[in-house]
Amino acid sequence: MTFAYGTMTIDGDRRRAAAATVVDILRQRFGERLSTSAAVREQHGHTTTWLETQAPDAVVFATSTEEVSEIVKVCAAHKVPVIAFGTGTSLEGHVNAPYGGICIDLTPMNRVTAVHAEDLDCVVEAGVTRTMLNDYIRDTGLFFPIDPGADASLGGMAATRASGTNAVRYGTMKENVLALTAVMADGTVVKTAGRAKKSSAGYDLTRLLVGSEGTLGIITEVTLRLAGIPEAISGGVCTFETVEGACEAVILTIQSGIPVARIELLDTLQVKAVNAYSKLELEEAPTLFLEFHGTEAGVAEQSERFGEIAADCGGGNFVWTTRTEDRTRLWKARHDAYWAACALSPGKKALSTDVCVPISRLAECVAETRRDIEEHGLVAPMVGHVGDGNFHVLVLVDMDSDKEKAEAEAFVGRLNMRAIGMEGTCTGEHGIGQGKMKYLAYEHGPGVGVMRAIKQALDPDNIMNPGKILAG
Amino acid sequence: MTFAYGTMTIDGDRRRAAAATVVDILRQRFGERLSTSAAVREQHGHTTTWLETQAPDAVVFATSTEEVSEIVKVCAAHKVPVIAFGTGTSLEGHVNAPYGGICIDLTPMNRVTAVHAEDLDCVVEAGVTRTMLNDYIRDTGLFFPIDPGADASLGGMAATRASGTNAVRYGTMKENVLALTAVMADGTVVKTAGRAKKSSAGYDLTRLLVGSEGTLGIITEVTLRLAGIPEAISGGVCTFETVEGACEAVILTIQSGIPVARIELLDTLQVKAVNAYSKLELEEAPTLFLEFHGTEAGVAEQSERFGEIAADCGGGNFVWTTRTEDRTRLWKARHDAYWAACALSPGKKALSTDVCVPISRLAECVAETRRDIEEHGLVAPMVGHVGDGNFHVLVLVDMDSDKEKAEAEAFVGRLNMRAIGMEGTCTGEHGIGQGKMKYLAYEHGPGVGVMRAIKQALDPDNIMNPGKILAG
Repeated sequence: MTFAYGTMTIDGDRRRAAAATVVDILRQRFGERLSTSAAVREQHGHTTTWLETQAPDAVVFATSTEEVSEIVKVCAAHKVPVIAFGTGTSLEGHVNAPYGGICIDLTPMNRVTAVHAEDLDCVVEAGVTRTMLNDYIRDTGLFFPIDPGADASLGGMAATRASGTNAVRYGTMKENVLALTAVMADGTVVKTAGRAKKSSAGYDLTRLLVGSEGTLGIITEVTLRLAGIPEAISGGVCTFETVEGACEAVILTIQSGIPVARIELLDTLQVKAVNAYSKLELEEAPTLFLEFHGTEAGVAEQSERFGEIAADCGGGNFVWTTRTEDRTRLWKARHDAYWAACALSPGKKALSTDVCVPISRLAECVAETRRDIEEHGLVAPMVGHVGDGNFHVLVLVDMDSDKEKAEAEAFVGRLNMRAIGMEGTCTGEHGIGQGKMKYLAYEHGPGVGVMRAIKQALDPDNIMNPGKILAG
Repeated sequence: MTFAYGTMTIDGDRRRAAAATVVDILRQRFGERLSTSAAVREQHGHTTTWLETQAPDAVVFATSTEEVSEIVKVCAAHKVPVIAFGTGTSLEGHVNAPYGGICIDLTPMNRVTAVHAEDLDCVVEAGVTRTMLNDYIRDTGLFFPIDPGADASLGGMAATRASGTNAVRYGTMKENVLALTAVMADGTVVKTAGRAKKSSAGYDLTRLLVGSEGTLGIITEVTLRLAGIPEAISGGVCTFETVEGACEAVILTIQSGIPVARIELLDTLQVKAVNAYSKLELEEAPTLFLEFHGTEAGVAEQSERFGEIAADCGGGNFVWTTRTEDRTRLWKARHDAYWAACALSPGKKALSTDVCVPISRLAECVAETRRDIEEHGLVAPMVGHVGDGNFHVLVLVDMDSDKEKAEAEAFVGRLNMRAIGMEGTCTGEHGIGQGKMKYLAYEHGPGVGVMRAIKQALDPDNIMNPGKILAG
């Protein structure tokens, strides 16, 4: 049996034989750094998702770009898939191995190669996580602002075009990756740019690889922008009568140009979950978590302006503080929202999905989605980086119930089409992976043909993370 | 005679015959909107550059994306080059037609299709210029901040990844194009994204086309981010004892996180040129032009902080003002810097080149370049968007002197290699065009192979603006 382009073009038996050959060659080269144990393989196919695990044939722990290049060359010679692995915290099955192959675990590549504090940038290997980096640069007065829920690897964050709570002010990985080193499908090592803040020299290979989910090349090193730790930070919580009111406050805040650093929505169910999980006593109503960065005078001004907007939108009294310990507790709870939601129904699995719409459509999209959840009797808290028009729904699913799984999938379909219909996107920050491939065509139309042509040109044998983004 | 890939692969006679056929077909379809007059053709090959004009076979004035698609389909069928034309203000020969072909003039596509003030974005046709857009949206409280020296078309600005004086705060076209519509080499129309502020859905076709200089597709429509007109603007001028001192002040300003909106360097010769051309009476010394955007309190705070930094770097007393008329006169003079420089030596032509380096290397790069200019006896004022590490040199060249031309070219070569050697780029905002093709390989190494593979995949017959970026 053979498959159409986008899947592997060789049959199962030949594939298995080729993989066995590659495993033999790599074992001789990498010794104990190659594992074929079931536990290690399963763990490397596992993602924080409801999708089934599809384990690779072997896992190799790589310590350098040169080693990654070596591994890819062996795989290329035998047309065996290569899947890059960082922390395995992606949400759409990005590290699954539907056609087997070699998983390259990049966690040993955990060095911060250079910190150029004077240029507000640094160079890290792909396996460095965001908190490792922030710990490392703590004394420089700088920080790296992109913060997805998980403590993900920076290579993985680049590969999925990740963002997080600070993106409304600091941008996403798209804006914060200055350059990267990647191993292409034939093993060639490419450095996409220098460290200049801007360049008009040729095609933007950096941005092409950011968000390509390992399907065009394996990112092994990343040059990142850093930001100065703000002189002052203020933050607080504001509850609203309705979720629409909260969204209206967000819209007005963005439109009036308040440079809010974080503005996160939790719906009532998510607040309940957070209270239970993180031992908080928040009022159980639609709630915004906010943070402002600037000078002492600046954050006071921003906080007060937001308070006025909130009051106009049915918001409660906005109490803000510059006390670090209060803020830390709040944001820890926000980052744990996923686990808090999971804890609402122990035994069920959380299907975490995200969409993003133009901010003017946010209230409408959130309200329609809330109605959809209620009409279908789903348990599904919502939480979002609403300053960007981006929100998440966590649908709790009994994985033993085909009915619940089908209902959850249908809900995700309606949500994606709703967002696309509002000139938005089927994923603001999680990526396509396996889970959202079918929505890509609705969103991009003929653009998918251009993506396929690029994939075909740069990876003619489809060995780079096959079965993601474009397959099927 | 045939050429290697990157140039046209058909011989001259066949090319001319094919072009004649295409011109006949298009004349029947477009009538008087197609011109083959020498004057029109010459004008459309002309760029603000020292490079020789290479006219296309015909110019068609297109009024819609559909028309552009029609024209490209005819050209594709006969393998005849297509060159997009906006305002012809590019600096590296981007609109030249070294292999002839059809120039598509997009100036009739000058409609602002939509303004979504509530989302801080708008949709414009490619022929709308930056000042046309800003005039159109004047009453919305919003503005489009990217401002190259010329009043360029927004399609052209996207195609060359342009920036300008505001980029240090608002980013370049890379950050400010949300989505675009492009006609690909086979005439397919692609819309690269919706209007969501961020997306992780598939390859970043927007960023691939931004900066591709018409070699992958013709940009016909652009969705742009807008910014709120700041509540308060302050600005001023500060002179320094040395150019290094001025650069040091810039570096410290950026490093200390002052969100400066504009910070422009003029060296002594450029100040002299500006005084003469724009009837100003600036002190003839290395000078920074600055602007701060924010609240009343914010701009006062920023201006005062900069004043302290300047004083530490040998800067004169920094006088700032919020008076609109003073600021406007200053920035008009800054935008006229190119013409002011040209006027230094009437009869000579200005070779305008730009590089960009990490900000920590700025003082060193500018000082070495100044020494280089002096050692070689060139007349070459410098001016730059130094907050980004980006600066321009305008070498005045007697086009009748082969010696002067050779010296200018050698200087540009040394400047490019100096910037690349400092982890910078051979062009921060002008693009590669014809003028900088030979430096691309030095800067990108094996990355150029990836660029070629993409070009080959998306434009197999090399009809899209051939002889730019990758040719030769």
